[in-house]
Amino acid sequence: MSDALSQRLFDELNQLVLIDPHTHINPLSPASTSLADILGYHYYTELAHSAGMPRARIEEQGLTPKEKVGRLVEGLGHIDNTVQFSWLLEAARELFGIDVERIDASNWESVFDAAQAKFDQTDWEEQVLRLSGLESVFLTNDFDDSLAGFDTQRYVPCLRTDELVFHFWRDQVRQRLEAASSISIHTLGDLAAALVQRFEHFCSRGARACAISLPPSFSPVQVSECDAEAALSQLMSSSEASADSRQVLGYWVFWQLAQNCQRFGLPFDLMIGVNRAVYPSGVFQGQDLYDSRVSLIQYQELFNAFPQVTFPISVLASVTNQELVSYAWIFPNVVCNGHWWYSNTPSFISKDLQARLEAVPRNKIVGYYSDMYKLEFALPKFAMFKRCLASVLSNHFVQGMGWTETRAIELGQQILRGNVQRLFY
Amino acid sequence: MSDALSQRLFDELNQLVLIDPHTHINPLSPASTSLADILGYHYYTELAHSAGMPRARIEEQGLTPKEKVGRLVEGLGHIDNTVQFSWLLEAARELFGIDVERIDASNWESVFDAAQAKFDQTDWEEQVLRLSGLESVFLTNDFDDSLAGFDTQRYVPCLRTDELVFHFWRDQVRQRLEAASSISIHTLGDLAAALVQRFEHFCSRGARACAISLPPSFSPVQVSECDAEAALSQLMSSSEASADSRQVLGYWVFWQLAQNCQRFGLPFDLMIGVNRAVYPSGVFQGQDLYDSRVSLIQYQELFNAFPQVTFPISVLASVTNQELVSYAWIFPNVVCNGHWWYSNTPSFISKDLQARLEAVPRNKIVGYYSDMYKLEFALPKFAMFKRCLASVLSNHFVQGMGWTETRAIELGQQILRGNVQRLFY
Amino acid sequence: MSDALSQRLFDELNQLVLIDPHTHINPLSPASTSLADILGYHYYTELAHSAGMPRARIEEQGLTPKEKVGRLVEGLGHIDNTVQFSWLLEAARELFGIDVERIDASNWESVFDAAQAKFDQTDWEEQVLRLSGLESVFLTNDFDDSLAGFDTQRYVPCLRTDELVFHFWRDQVRQRLEAASSISIHTLGDLAAALVQRFEHFCSRGARACAISLPPSFSPVQVSECDAEAALSQLMSSSEASADSRQVLGYWVFWQLAQNCQRFGLPFDLMIGVNRAVYPSGVFQGQDLYDSRVSLIQYQELFNAFPQVTFPISVLASVTNQELVSYAWIFPNVVCNGHWWYSNTPSFISKDLQARLEAVPRNKIVGYYSDMYKLEFALPKFAMFKRCLASVLSNHFVQGMGWTETRAIELGQQILRGNVQRLFY
Repeated sequence: MSDALSQRLFDELNQLVLIDPHTHINPLSPASTSLADILGYHYYTELAHSAGMPRARIEEQGLTPKEKVGRLVEGLGHIDNTVQFSWLLEAARELFGIDVERIDASNWESVFDAAQAKFDQTDWEEQVLRLSGLESVFLTNDFDDSLAGFDTQRYVPCLRTDELVFHFWRDQVRQRLEAASSISIHTLGDLAAALVQRFEHFCSRGARACAISLPPSFSPVQVSECDAEAALSQLMSSSEASADSRQVLGYWVFWQLAQNCQRFGLPFDLMIGVNRAVYPSGVFQGQDLYDSRVSLIQYQELFNAFPQVTFPISVLASVTNQELVSYAWIFPNVVCNGHWWYSNTPSFISKDLQARLEAVPRNKIVGYYSDMYKLEFALPKFAMFKRCLASVLSNHFVQGMGWTETRAIELGQQILRGNVQRLFY
Repeated sequence: MSDALSQRLFDELNQLVLIDPHTHINPLSPASTSLADILGYHYYTELAHSAGMPRARIEEQGLTPKEKVGRLVEGLGHIDNTVQFSWLLEAARELFGIDVERIDASNWESVFDAAQAKFDQTDWEEQVLRLSGLESVFLTNDFDDSLAGFDTQRYVPCLRTDELVFHFWRDQVRQRLEAASSISIHTLGDLAAALVQRFEHFCSRGARACAISLPPSFSPVQVSECDAEAALSQLMSSSEASADSRQVLGYWVFWQLAQNCQRFGLPFDLMIGVNRAVYPSGVFQGQDLYDSRVSLIQYQELFNAFPQVTFPISVLASVTNQELVSYAWIFPNVVCNGHWWYSNTPSFISKDLQARLEAVPRNKIVGYYSDMYKLEFALPKFAMFKRCLASVLSNHFVQGMGWTETRAIELGQQILRGNVQRLFY
Repeated sequence: MSDALSQRLFDELNQLVLIDPHTHINPLSPASTSLADILGYHYYTELAHSAGMPRARIEEQGLTPKEKVGRLVEGLGHIDNTVQFSWLLEAARELFGIDVERIDASNWESVFDAAQAKFDQTDWEEQVLRLSGLESVFLTNDFDDSLAGFDTQRYVPCLRTDELVFHFWRDQVRQRLEAASSISIHTLGDLAAALVQRFEHFCSRGARACAISLPPSFSPVQVSECDAEAALSQLMSSSEASADSRQVLGYWVFWQLAQNCQRFGLPFDLMIGVNRAVYPSGVFQGQDLYDSRVSLIQYQELFNAFPQVTFPISVLASVTNQELVSYAWIFPNVVCNGHWWYSNTPSFISKDLQARLEAVPRNKIVGYYSDMYKLEFALPKFAMFKRCLASVLSNHFVQGMGWTETRAIELGQQILRGNVQRLFY
């Protein structure tokens, strides 16, 4: 932080205990078990790969964690300018007690060992949550997840539905849905019933959201039962489903999801704008990109059809942020949600956040989620966001608009925690 | 303002008496008559609605002004972060003499009464204009407005043409045009004559601009007389006009408007990018949104066809601002005009304004218009803009480029007032 | 520079001797011969024209340099706010030793004469290069350029290929290719051989890049030999080539260029997003604009097909910058290249540069190229960029991330020079 006021605001905001409303945590193994879990995060593998390291070197089978880290460290020099790299240093400092400016051949083994000493403590998970100021963490669960074996108060189930909308035509997906729901799917009615069963299952286990990521081309409309029945029938009878039938049925399933969100009172998180496998030779989870030519006008019919469903919306490209601001300013059921993936760097966050705070009702802005795969990333990612937030509160609200610091902090608290509580609980 | 230099520049710019080149003022009732006129501005009703207040509660028929204000005040707590809310506080402070940080259940009645005491003064209109530093105000007049009963020096007529381009196929619009022009419309020649008559009428009453708002899909081309005649004939003979015929005739009318702008020496204000009634259940005037995927390349043929017509252009989405900068930098007849609607918040204004001031000739930038419905909004809206302008002048020109303060102020004056005078008079 | 830290960083970066990786310098006449060469730069003629000066007045045949400058000076008052105008003042100050705030009727002749005294010195070219800290300069050579008569170490050939991809169907272009390659083109094989011959010629003369500018609609795919052969045959046999055949052959040629880049180890500079002759009545080189609705997804197939080719990419519109950041973060062969044309103003540079430095590996960012036609513009254009760079290094890296100044300077040096060396040599 470059000034005292921002620092004071940051320090106050940093006291809050938070709920992280979107992550990919595995509740059965939430914390890292070696530094390879940290450096194996796709941000580091894809950036190291982009900077020149061959995929085969990164993803060779059978590497020990230490070998894997040793290899990735060779690529860190090229990415030490990135904010993603700074998360690593901040996690090392705040969680592992290691304060270094670089991680390179000279020091990585000592970092590895110091981190390992932490990971090996039996209460490491508890320590990370406490150090990170985290009370609970939303998950991303497959539709056929049993949701068993973990504390669903701490690790909150969320129903992820990409496969149902985009890949139901695959036999495997249909069979998984049949198995999970104990409903044999022959008709549209069967499919509807299986979906309802999944919502019942998730809600009985405390689910707080339904979520989906969507490609830029997705432009959902309500399709008639008749058209959907025909599409389903075509998909079930033919080994090669037509793209048209897939799309018709996908839209129908999507509409069913929205109806179930209404019926079960779940917010429907829309994560808009990702194209999958644009770079198929990329590393694991480092293959997706986007076409920034997308508009929320594509969701006009949906927003109008489901006034009782809350849609927390994430946009992948910052050029869509103004639309998100405007749609959240007009539609009661549209909420701004976090700063997603390729927009999750300080200059995009600051710009997008200020635009939201200037024009969207304060009760409709969910400040941030970490999107993390391992608990250790909540601290540095939320810290990055809080710095951006403190800076906007300082510059725009306190200095620009004449607000008191207390009032600015209250706004920050609502963005960081209050709205998560209000919208998802 | 967060620094002394910006404050000095603001204070100097704030001395200027201005012409507001685009508003929706009703010249027969330009000022508010109660606080309900202020809080009834669509910015407050739509934001309160978006934040959770039912439309029926806001728009119930038969409410007294005081009841209406009382209801809207309940929603203000959720929108006190917005810049739109800050306009209300600034108007209250500068115009009504009430300096409060919030308007809530505890104080709204005293605000209502204090404001009412002002509104009830017989010279309130004069007072507002004087306090706001306003010399004259451009209107938005229907094509069949008689333009009678007011001082057209102060309230300057502008011919608004959306209905002629987009709804001429409606019997009612055609009949209104026939009645206003006293020309019976059977042929394209009749329609052309009726349009000319309207320009003559407006210019005889001192009109200074022709204006239109346009959807993102609008991509006007010159259509042949033959095609237009066929479209008109189809529209006149059939109760159901085809979308094609409507579009062909719309483009033809649009081209006629541009030709009349050339003939009568009027600038043609293009307000590009709005989709109407995206959210039909929204409050009055709170239903329109947009698709930010629009390009000025859609106007290439127009700009080339009418080199003598000045086109002051407003873009709805900030992502189109760079195109506006570039087109104004190349086309002599393209002028940057204000910061419209969803782009009318400080972070978009600052960014868009700086881009314009860096690369567009200084005689081709119209800084701002208020777009207001009641006179009381000019002061806070222009103040918001002047703060952004003072900040860009301070940071970029004085500190960055080494300009003297005097030179920076001269540039600001030209943007705020000089160019309005030069381009519209 | 508005603060001491930024100034210190700028001063350090300003010590570097640079390679300019993209210009339009004529190596046989690299420096200006009169101030008309400076003021005749399209930035000044197009801005003066846009601000009101008739094209005929600017482009009248037979004007002496002094007459031409005298006329253009009349238009400078309207554009003295632009950053392009500031280049002129900075060049005058740093290269000609003339420190003025304005150039107008009162002083232009003395500026003209003082500049002329410099231009007339026999070692002026050497002086400019030394004063500008330039070691070498990349050119933009037509495919049939003999590349003879100049020092190719200093003026580095680059193969510009727009004509081959977009205008090969013109007899004149084919004939020029035949003449240059000494290959008579009847079949696709002939055309392939002629292209190879051109790469051989360019590489034998030290070429360091192949380059092309592309319209927003360009969406290249690999076309079959069979389709390309048919298209070529249709083009050769008919005076009127179909748009389809032109496009098919254009894509095929483009793919050939990429294959030759791979074979000859040349980076392939893609300059994405320009529409030519949008304003045909504009001044020379002041007629091109763009449609900002373009996406790098259009190049997905290309980036995947040529993993060994480095693609330094320039985007014309700043709204495409986030895509460039994301694609460079994922694809090893995608590199961010400079700030092109309509994005080459401080606010776009600062925003786009910070986004790149936050998320793209540091070895994949080519900071800047001047795009100049005369050597005198390198100094002010690079100075503008270095100020933006110093400011981002200061605010984000030193103050925001806690970097030492030394580390920030090293990053700046790599961006400015190191990566040019690594990627093109």
